[in-house]
Amino acid sequence: MSDARGANRQTSTFDTLWPAILDIGRNPANGGYRRFAWSDADFTLREWFVGEAERRGLDVEVDRNGNLWAWWMPPGWSGDPRDAFVTGSHLDSVPDGGAFDGPLGVVSAFAAIDIVRERGVVPAIPVGVAAFSDEEGARFGVACVGSQLSTGALTADRARGLRDIDGITLAEALVRAARDPNQLGPDRHLAERVGVFVELHVEQGRALDLIDAPVAVASSIWPHGRWEFTFDGEANHAGATRLVDRRDPMLAFASSVHTARAQAQAHQAVATFGKVLVSPNGANAIPSQIRAWLDARAADEATLTALVEAISAEAHGHATLDSVGLQVVAESITPIVEFPEGPRARLTKALGRLGEIPVLPTAAGHDAGILSAQVPTAMLFVRNPTGVSHSPAEHAEMDDCNEGAEALADVMADWISS
Amino acid sequence: MSDARGANRQTSTFDTLWPAILDIGRNPANGGYRRFAWSDADFTLREWFVGEAERRGLDVEVDRNGNLWAWWMPPGWSGDPRDAFVTGSHLDSVPDGGAFDGPLGVVSAFAAIDIVRERGVVPAIPVGVAAFSDEEGARFGVACVGSQLSTGALTADRARGLRDIDGITLAEALVRAARDPNQLGPDRHLAERVGVFVELHVEQGRALDLIDAPVAVASSIWPHGRWEFTFDGEANHAGATRLVDRRDPMLAFASSVHTARAQAQAHQAVATFGKVLVSPNGANAIPSQIRAWLDARAADEATLTALVEAISAEAHGHATLDSVGLQVVAESITPIVEFPEGPRARLTKALGRLGEIPVLPTAAGHDAGILSAQVPTAMLFVRNPTGVSHSPAEHAEMDDCNEGAEALADVMADWISS
Repeated sequence: MSDARGANRQTSTFDTLWPAILDIGRNPANGGYRRFAWSDADFTLREWFVGEAERRGLDVEVDRNGNLWAWWMPPGWSGDPRDAFVTGSHLDSVPDGGAFDGPLGVVSAFAAIDIVRERGVVPAIPVGVAAFSDEEGARFGVACVGSQLSTGALTADRARGLRDIDGITLAEALVRAARDPNQLGPDRHLAERVGVFVELHVEQGRALDLIDAPVAVASSIWPHGRWEFTFDGEANHAGATRLVDRRDPMLAFASSVHTARAQAQAHQAVATFGKVLVSPNGANAIPSQIRAWLDARAADEATLTALVEAISAEAHGHATLDSVGLQVVAESITPIVEFPEGPRARLTKALGRLGEIPVLPTAAGHDAGILSAQVPTAMLFVRNPTGVSHSPAEHAEMDDCNEGAEALADVMADWISS
Repeated sequence: MSDARGANRQTSTFDTLWPAILDIGRNPANGGYRRFAWSDADFTLREWFVGEAERRGLDVEVDRNGNLWAWWMPPGWSGDPRDAFVTGSHLDSVPDGGAFDGPLGVVSAFAAIDIVRERGVVPAIPVGVAAFSDEEGARFGVACVGSQLSTGALTADRARGLRDIDGITLAEALVRAARDPNQLGPDRHLAERVGVFVELHVEQGRALDLIDAPVAVASSIWPHGRWEFTFDGEANHAGATRLVDRRDPMLAFASSVHTARAQAQAHQAVATFGKVLVSPNGANAIPSQIRAWLDARAADEATLTALVEAISAEAHGHATLDSVGLQVVAESITPIVEFPEGPRARLTKALGRLGEIPVLPTAAGHDAGILSAQVPTAMLFVRNPTGVSHSPAEHAEMDDCNEGAEALADVMADWISS
């Protein structure tokens, strides 16, 4: 431990680092991951992050919002990081999600540092590895909580009051994690510290597979959001209540599922009801209430607005027909993110050895999209041969993951040597 | 305690006994009840039952299936009960159910004994009060577990393996309740002990309200059952997966909800999807699986079979259209119960003071329906002014409840004096 900045350096490739986290938060029933924010699995992954940073002699920092940072500082640098090259992603998952969505970017960040160091590159500016808290929003219903708090897109008050399915607030979850919820708030040093944030992520579609390329650069993130639809009917006996006397919210919800699909098709967009909570959820009781979350995304903001308005209007029509109440509340809306030309061009150039790099838009939200409100950002995608994501079947070949980490190392070396 | 058979006799009416259980298992959020089998609320209700029996000097017995019995034995009777007049119902509830469904019949049974005793009636045959375990099936998915085990309609092996939503088997729940799950099985003394079982129950419809009568006698119970529909699709990212690449089981489920309603209408029956479990149930994930329970009931068995076959066939069509798998499994099917003429005529006669007693069929299942396979049974219904049941809004006026207990006392006095 005499030379914390270099003594424990080692030469790793992505595939040697990857297995260490494969058992964390895995659901043995289906092989999917349940790595929810501030759960035991999340704590274990955070410990793993700190361990990897310490093995490399990086300085670990946990910011006010629980985001993890590990810093590789240039020789002779004094004071805090400034204009750093930061890379990373997130460690949490959706319910029964895949292994790659998030952790691929964090593991690749550590691997890229190893590769760059092995090449003998001496950084002229600080290098950071970041893991943002609760990107998926699987537990508290709002995505990118850590990065949104840091940019101020999500207020600390609203974040503290978010509740999980057991009624536990984020504030309470933080207290249980021995963190102070009053610390939540904007990261006032973000813009000054981060010169660029490059997030490497598994592709969540099949574009790279179809063109047979291992890595792409991102062009933009579709605008997207979540809306909670609450259908209020009247609980009653499923046997003894005549059809004409029913106010069953299941029917209006079912109609709205088809409305969402049809309107998505009409708007060349996507719209999904993937989360549904039925009350009281008894087999012999007509439901009193259905809460259903609409996830909608489109190529531009006007289309997204039109899409959700159309779905909402038709859903209100279905509800009225069945004498059922309906409330639609926007839970989160993220505008379009166009990744800036400058960093994108620089990445493309740094990856010249790969030939012409594909440039892809994505309909999935990312911390890089949130941070782009305050700092230059860019993204790299690694091929997903099936396109399946948010599922135990999500996959990437180890060769492609190694290629991704090498590409990230190329970008890092280019950025920090200059 | 010197004269356990009479010293503590007291004069109660229904409304003085009723308040004692109103707080047990009540959900303060909506006023509904969560009295699931072998839960804390159930234990408290069982203690209440034993207390009420002991206050009246009745002998309490818990049978091999956890059903509670309290016996008022005729003076000088020796040995076990035989050909008894038994009345009662159940104490458990659906999720957020009403106060009356079940407990009305048990409290009325104790009140009727008090009334009959106050009238100075001396029983010539034993009188029993019964509370059957887990009538609603809210926790383990199968209704009337206690009575079905006792008649042999449900095998002990199948019962022991039933699982609740947390994966706890009925066998495990019984062990936690300090009961031996190996004891489960048919009650071989049932037919010999029970001369008649009269279940008093709150009406689960508005027929009595529409004809302005407080009490009715049951004619029959519609055949009914539960079928589990499992739609298997493929989990995927709700943003990044093109509509054409999806195998989203939510669409086929939604179509099946409308199919069930339309077919119920066509068959002059009822069909309801009231319980739904979505996996993984993440707002930004296309579901991998939807499990939904169909409750269906019709006036006769041929119609019920045709109804469920029609719904199932159309649901398979919906699933095929979306490349989704579908399995339909009958979880429980209860044939029609025609209450026997003899006891029904005797009840009607005993209630002569009320004028012409309405005779009603019901689409709700009851322990009386299960027991009718082995012993003579009859039912009394008490007016429900809104018809709402299986809901916090379920209601009966205290005057009508008192009238119901008086009617039950009339029937009891008539039966046991002869």
